[in-house]
Amino acid sequence: MPKVSVYYFQLKSLGESLRMLLAYGGQEFEDIRIEFANFSEFKPETPFGQLPMLVIDGKKYAQSSAIARYLGRKYGLAGKDIEEDFEIDQRLYFSINMFTAGSAIMYEKDEAVREKKFAELAKTKFPFYLQKLEEILTKNNGFLALGRLTWADFVFVGYFDCLKMLLRTSDLEEKYPIFKKPIETVVNIPKVKAFIDSAPKSEI
Amino acid sequence: MPKVSVYYFQLKSLGESLRMLLAYGGQEFEDIRIEFANFSEFKPETPFGQLPMLVIDGKKYAQSSAIARYLGRKYGLAGKDIEEDFEIDQRLYFSINMFTAGSAIMYEKDEAVREKKFAELAKTKFPFYLQKLEEILTKNNGFLALGRLTWADFVFVGYFDCLKMLLRTSDLEEKYPIFKKPIETVVNIPKVKAFIDSAPKSEI
Ligand SMILES: N[C@@H](CCC(=O)N[C@@H](CS)C(=O)NCC(=O)O)C(=O)O
Ligand SMILES: N[C@@H](CCC(=O)N[C@@H](CS)C(=O)NCC(=O)O)C(=O)O
Repeated sequence: MPKVSVYYFQLKSLGESLRMLLAYGGQEFEDIRIEFANFSEFKPETPFGQLPMLVIDGKKYAQSSAIARYLGRKYGLAGKDIEEDFEIDQRLYFSINMFTAGSAIMYEKDEAVREKKFAELAKTKFPFYLQKLEEILTKNNGFLALGRLTWADFVFVGYFDCLKMLLRTSDLEEKYPIFKKPIETVVNIPKVKAFIDSAPKSEI
Repeated sequence: MPKVSVYYFQLKSLGESLRMLLAYGGQEFEDIRIEFANFSEFKPETPFGQLPMLVIDGKKYAQSSAIARYLGRKYGLAGKDIEEDFEIDQRLYFSINMFTAGSAIMYEKDEAVREKKFAELAKTKFPFYLQKLEEILTKNNGFLALGRLTWADFVFVGYFDCLKMLLRTSDLEEKYPIFKKPIETVVNIPKVKAFIDSAPKSEI
C-alpha cells in the first residue's frame, strides 16, 4: 500500500472529500491539519501555495478537484467510459463554481465591497445555482451525475457545511431537502463513517 | 459521426484548444463565433452563462478544461492510465491558474485597483509561474506532462497569445524559448494546421 498523507487545515471544506475518498478506498493515510498561524511557513512546501495537498510516496499533488477525480477513478467511483466521466466533470465544475464564487466573497477584505458583492450574488447567481442543483439531484436519484454515487458527490458533501456558511444559509438542506440525499449516502458508508467518527470535528 | 458545434467568441483564448482538438480528431464541427454585442441575448442558452460551449448531437457542455479533457481522451491525447491522467491534470490546473489570475485582473473595472493588482502579480505570482512552467517544459521534452504531447498542450497553445496580452509581455516566447516547443508542435500537426489556415484570424 502506498504511503499517503493529506495536508489541509482543521476544516472539512475542500479537504474532507479527499479524506473521505481515501477512507472509502481503504487507503490508510496521515491526516495532517496545519494551523492557520503556521501556514505562511508551510506555504512554500505546497505545489501552488495552497492546500489541500496530497502526498503519495513522497510525491506532492495539489488541486482538490484533480485529486478527487484521481481517487474517484482509482476506487471505482468514476464513469464506465469517457462519456460518463464527462458528465461527472460537468457536474463537478457546476457545483464547485458556486463554492468558488462564495469563497471569493469571503476573501474580500473591504467590508462594504464584500457586502455589496454578497447581496448581488445572493439575488442572482446563488438562487440560479441552487435551483439548478436541486433539479440535477432530483433527476439523478439524489446524486450529481449518472443517477448514482460518484466522486463528485464526495466533493459536494465535503464542502457542504462550508457552503452553508458562505451562502449564510444555515438551513440550506431544509430549503432543498434533496441535498440531504448525497450527504446521508456518503457519510453512512461504513468505512467513511468510521473515518468521520474518529476524525477531529470541525464546523465547516 | 456526431454533429458537433463549438460556440465561442471571435477569439482563440479558451476556445481554440477545443477547435484544434476537434480538428486533430478529424471531427467536423460548426465553428460558431458569437459577437460580444449579442452575447447577453445568447447567455441564457449556455449551461453556466459563459463560453466556450460545445454541443454534441444537441447536448450542451461547458467548461473548457472539462471539454478538452474529454476530447483529449477521445482522440488518444490522454494518459495510458489514471496515474498519467493525474499528471496531465496537475499540469493543466497549474497552467490554467496563471491564465485565470491574469483574466481576473483584466475583468477588474476600477483602473487604479486593476493596476495595483497587476503590479502585485507581475512581481510575485507571474514570475513564479513562468519559471516553474519553463522548468516543467524543459523536463518534459517541451511538453506539459509525460514528456510527450497531451491535450493539456492544446489548452496552453490555444490561450498562449491571450496570456501574452494578459501578462503584457509580447515577447514572452523570446524570454522563455522553450514555450515555442509545444506551440510549434501543435500548430504544425497537419489536420490542426489545415484548420488554422482556414479559420478566421484573431490576435488573442
Ligand atoms: N483550487 C484549489 C483551491 C485551494 C484553496 O483555495 N485553498 C485555500 C484553503 S480552502 C488555501 O490554501 N488558502 C490559503 C492561501 O491561499 O494562502 C483547490 O481546489 O485545491
Ligand atoms: N471556466 C470557464 C471560463 C469561461 C470564461 O471565462 N468565458 C468568458 C470568455 S473567455 C465569458 O464567457 N465571458 C462572458 C461572461 O462571463 O459574461 C471555462 O474554462 O470555460
